[in-house]
Amino acid sequence: MAAPTLPLAEISPETLPGHRVALGGDAPLTLDCGVALGPYTVAWQSWGTLNADKSNAILVCHALTGDQYAAGPHPVTGREGWWEIMIGPGKVLDTDRFYVLCANVLGGCMGTSGPASADPATGRPYGLNFPVITIGDMVRAQAMLIDHLGIERLFCVIGGSMGGMQALEWASKYGDRVFAAVPIAATPRHSAQNIAFHEVGRQAIMADPDWCQGDYHSLDKRPRRGLAVARMEAHITYLSEAALTRKFGRRLQGRDTVTYGFDADFQVESYLRHQGSTFVERFDANSYLYITRAMDYFDMAAEHGGVLAEAFRNTGVRFCVISFTSDWLYPTVESRAIVHALNAVAANVSFMEIETDKGHDAFLLDEPEMHRTLRGFIEGAARHRGLPG
Amino acid sequence: MAAPTLPLAEISPETLPGHRVALGGDAPLTLDCGVALGPYTVAWQSWGTLNADKSNAILVCHALTGDQYAAGPHPVTGREGWWEIMIGPGKVLDTDRFYVLCANVLGGCMGTSGPASADPATGRPYGLNFPVITIGDMVRAQAMLIDHLGIERLFCVIGGSMGGMQALEWASKYGDRVFAAVPIAATPRHSAQNIAFHEVGRQAIMADPDWCQGDYHSLDKRPRRGLAVARMEAHITYLSEAALTRKFGRRLQGRDTVTYGFDADFQVESYLRHQGSTFVERFDANSYLYITRAMDYFDMAAEHGGVLAEAFRNTGVRFCVISFTSDWLYPTVESRAIVHALNAVAANVSFMEIETDKGHDAFLLDEPEMHRTLRGFIEGAARHRGLPG
Repeated sequence: MAAPTLPLAEISPETLPGHRVALGGDAPLTLDCGVALGPYTVAWQSWGTLNADKSNAILVCHALTGDQYAAGPHPVTGREGWWEIMIGPGKVLDTDRFYVLCANVLGGCMGTSGPASADPATGRPYGLNFPVITIGDMVRAQAMLIDHLGIERLFCVIGGSMGGMQALEWASKYGDRVFAAVPIAATPRHSAQNIAFHEVGRQAIMADPDWCQGDYHSLDKRPRRGLAVARMEAHITYLSEAALTRKFGRRLQGRDTVTYGFDADFQVESYLRHQGSTFVERFDANSYLYITRAMDYFDMAAEHGGVLAEAFRNTGVRFCVISFTSDWLYPTVESRAIVHALNAVAANVSFMEIETDKGHDAFLLDEPEMHRTLRGFIEGAARHRGLPG
Repeated sequence: MAAPTLPLAEISPETLPGHRVALGGDAPLTLDCGVALGPYTVAWQSWGTLNADKSNAILVCHALTGDQYAAGPHPVTGREGWWEIMIGPGKVLDTDRFYVLCANVLGGCMGTSGPASADPATGRPYGLNFPVITIGDMVRAQAMLIDHLGIERLFCVIGGSMGGMQALEWASKYGDRVFAAVPIAATPRHSAQNIAFHEVGRQAIMADPDWCQGDYHSLDKRPRRGLAVARMEAHITYLSEAALTRKFGRRLQGRDTVTYGFDADFQVESYLRHQGSTFVERFDANSYLYITRAMDYFDMAAEHGGVLAEAFRNTGVRFCVISFTSDWLYPTVESRAIVHALNAVAANVSFMEIETDKGHDAFLLDEPEMHRTLRGFIEGAARHRGLPG
């Protein structure tokens, strides 16, 4: 039952399933770096029906290596959506009731303009000529999409990891256009350790001769080995020590004894290699550079004199902040900083730390407590918003 | 005052300062993998004077990227020894009193036989023809050195990280030849997460085209980029999130604002790049593969039916086990497992968890509580051993 899939090399906005729209043709998007970007493309997916007064829209924001295929088959891998568990009839993001949409982020590689896209000025792939973007830029591009759809106010913005950063940025910069915000396993700023891990991944990509100073698309090459190493390293940070021990421990991969060699003797090695080799089939190396950079630059307090609470002064948004006990990438202390800031400005905020050994990636998984919490929060918010049950 | 240094490419047992000895010529060393290795070279350093009855010898075991230059200038970097703080007159390892020695491990690249050495059978560098070694093999090679020196019983075996693994292995396999053992920031077995991080480093090296399937020495190449990435990744695991935040936070490197590019905007990026680029000047990429593999294979309980205590049954060794609160590579729970096992066989064991934010690398640093603890332990052990004060 695998869906028909596309090789990554053939992906262009024209071949991808789903919606796409050209934005910024008349009034370009002014990026944080100062560049005026336009026209640019946003590729997005939607589920459910937008109601008459356009008040039932939930914007799902994806993480670093996610994309707009949050539900339904992925056009490259044929696998189900990364949040299939959350989106659908009767699910937490109930498509019988809400209009759920998810857009590939600016800088991405699944149809929205990014470094692999053709530069309208030259017709050739941008490569490193694509401007460096920020989480703020991603959200601005999403806001232009929401304008285009005539949605004045989103009912909810929700996402995990970098998706949670976007939810926070939406609430901070477009507080009057968001009714509720749900940052999950997120952080208000990238820590030194977060930056360090990303930098290693970038160096792994840039160390690959097939990266060609970022110009590999033009030269018909791909820095597959470097990108695979970056993915393997990052993947460790998405799990927890306990989860790795539970899933793999020191168990061997299809052998009774170690081979005294450099094959994948251990299951955990085989698993990581698989993560690396499948990732490069669906993700663009330059997009990985750009999106990790955007995350590193994220620091909500910085533009408010270092006071995070000021990012939410006078907010009317209802927040539900969720963290996981075993998440060491963006540990609970980061979510707590968000909650403290929100409380300091008397915002309406619920906070739940979920007990799990699954690490950062728990936001993608079947975590019943998270699902119960979100169902309750969204139900309550919908009632306050006056959406029919 | 920098000492004269050698480029790594010119390192051979003949050009390195310090002692060296050819072992295993008559009776080769039978490795865990089954290969009989011999002759092989062990390069080592010593400080202080061996007393008449050869009872005052302290064997210092080095970590993954360490070497025998624990004190005194390093012949490649010109920098002081990695345990300069511990070894010397009046220091914890008091060279006025003890004979301190440290040997480059088997598989290393500072004079002891390893993959960069010439294979006596061919005269060409071993490369991947060097047999895969284990922590047990490293210790067996050290025991042959101790035999050669006529030392019947070491007063103490001490080391941090992989050095601590060797100290444990010494106590387990040569309990009658060790009076005291001090494993610091060690573990009785590599966890899935430990293996995972090492595997990423190995994949980074092997992804570098200049690795040439391990044959780079013969082809006059060096996988510098891959090895640098491996080092950068590993270095993050040697520190703690708190230490990275304290040392670097989000501070920028020689600039007032971010550059919206992929330069090292952040101090932590610049620091990591420096760690990578200096490491490749002093370390051999294949040695990195071999030594990480030896660590991954380390599992003291495995050959005792999974019961760690059996590795120390009837031991007469006095143990001092030290861990650090912020070490997430080999966290305190691993040291505690060692202590539990030792207690289960009624061994003589002291255990100290040191409060520090410096992470795994704290064993290399000025940690006054560690130094006080070790001074007291060694003083007490020396008294029991009947060594003059």
